[in-house]
Amino acid sequence: MRNLLLTLRFDGSAFHGWQIQPNGVTVQAVLGTALERILGHRPNTHGCSRTDAGVHAREFYCSFRTGNPIPADRLQVALNFYLPPQIAVLACREVPAGFHARYGCASKTYCYQIHNARVRDPFLQGRALQEAQPLDTALLAREARDFVGTHDFAAFCAAGSSVQSTVRTLRRAEALRTGEELRLFFEADGFLYNMVRIMVGTLLEIGRGKRPPGMLPQMIADKDRKQAGYTAPAHGLYLWAVTYPKNALEQAQ
Amino acid sequence: MRNLLLTLRFDGSAFHGWQIQPNGVTVQAVLGTALERILGHRPNTHGCSRTDAGVHAREFYCSFRTGNPIPADRLQVALNFYLPPQIAVLACREVPAGFHARYGCASKTYCYQIHNARVRDPFLQGRALQEAQPLDTALLAREARDFVGTHDFAAFCAAGSSVQSTVRTLRRAEALRTGEELRLFFEADGFLYNMVRIMVGTLLEIGRGKRPPGMLPQMIADKDRKQAGYTAPAHGLYLWAVTYPKNALEQAQ
Repeated sequence: MRNLLLTLRFDGSAFHGWQIQPNGVTVQAVLGTALERILGHRPNTHGCSRTDAGVHAREFYCSFRTGNPIPADRLQVALNFYLPPQIAVLACREVPAGFHARYGCASKTYCYQIHNARVRDPFLQGRALQEAQPLDTALLAREARDFVGTHDFAAFCAAGSSVQSTVRTLRRAEALRTGEELRLFFEADGFLYNMVRIMVGTLLEIGRGKRPPGMLPQMIADKDRKQAGYTAPAHGLYLWAVTYPKNALEQAQ
Repeated sequence: MRNLLLTLRFDGSAFHGWQIQPNGVTVQAVLGTALERILGHRPNTHGCSRTDAGVHAREFYCSFRTGNPIPADRLQVALNFYLPPQIAVLACREVPAGFHARYGCASKTYCYQIHNARVRDPFLQGRALQEAQPLDTALLAREARDFVGTHDFAAFCAAGSSVQSTVRTLRRAEALRTGEELRLFFEADGFLYNMVRIMVGTLLEIGRGKRPPGMLPQMIADKDRKQAGYTAPAHGLYLWAVTYPKNALEQAQ
């Protein structure tokens, strides 16, 4: 059996997230159908993360096993032919047998896009959160830095989520502006359910003046979801980049 | 009667162009319905140009007369409330009685967006022409310069168009690249029907090596539509900017 790795990009607007669901069209289901047409069987695909409905992916990784000998570059071309225009396969390559797109992941970066302008932009519909109130980029950048480090992020995890540990290490939390577009970047070894959207919602409430600045360290320490901010909408969120350990993708010769 | 000027931005994907048609949803028709709800009458709207089905507008101007005393800023807010998300009113202001968005226009700039990459980008679907073959930006920029000047552009006008004169003055024709995005800009006092799309189609055929470079001056001189290139698809085209003569927008006090 070969182990193959796909790099995908998708516009999440049309999908109920990555993972196969009984109701709703998902990226994994659509990909499975295209793979089945080409490979003659429907492989078990492992995505690097579960993205929610409406969340986009600039870079998403997915691995699966197949006995089909189709060359990786031909599989890429065939997939791009069969997949809908909302999904693109940016790369396809053979990886070592033990590689797993989800468990093998070293870090992920998410980007939350805010269109900070009084009037909406038709070209950003479903692609950014429109925020009419002017946000202070420097303030958000300063506040976001309080998230950086190894913390128990229980306050920033959707209720009802069952994970063994809510401790994560955030390596980067930044706010960058280009004109009316404000982008918040978060890089971590892993994220809890809705973690980025709750961190963004909390930062937005600070930016809107509804919460005082300087409260994030206490909020993290209290581990109480009710003290953190709202869950920002999915349509501004992008899985931006994913890294794997050096050599993890290299085929042993 | 007051004369009002709207600055619009619209994603043309969902529309059969600007101008009202018996079949198909147009920007002018949708705008007319929203204006009627607010003003109590449906004004005769004058658009700065007729954009084709699928063509986008980063900046589009439209003027109309009304006796309704609603303040311009309140009309903008009300229109953005009633219009679909694909259309935004960026500005609304009172202009002199004699002002006409179409006839008063001094110059227009169109931009044609090409996504020059082997694999499509889901975020550019319907927003740029995907071209897999690498295009030489410097070559296209050099060729495009041959369009600049006052010429009879009959060879670059869709057959069946009836205009008094096919002479236009092109002030700017440029090719600029940022990574995989190649943009062609054209500024003129006015454009013939499909003129930008035929100029772009001709440049693309040169870029793809299907036509030798250096032939544009002869092609312009021959005034034969059949010698020019194909009509590039609508979805890469944007009405980018429109200028009016200095003081034309100023209300006499």
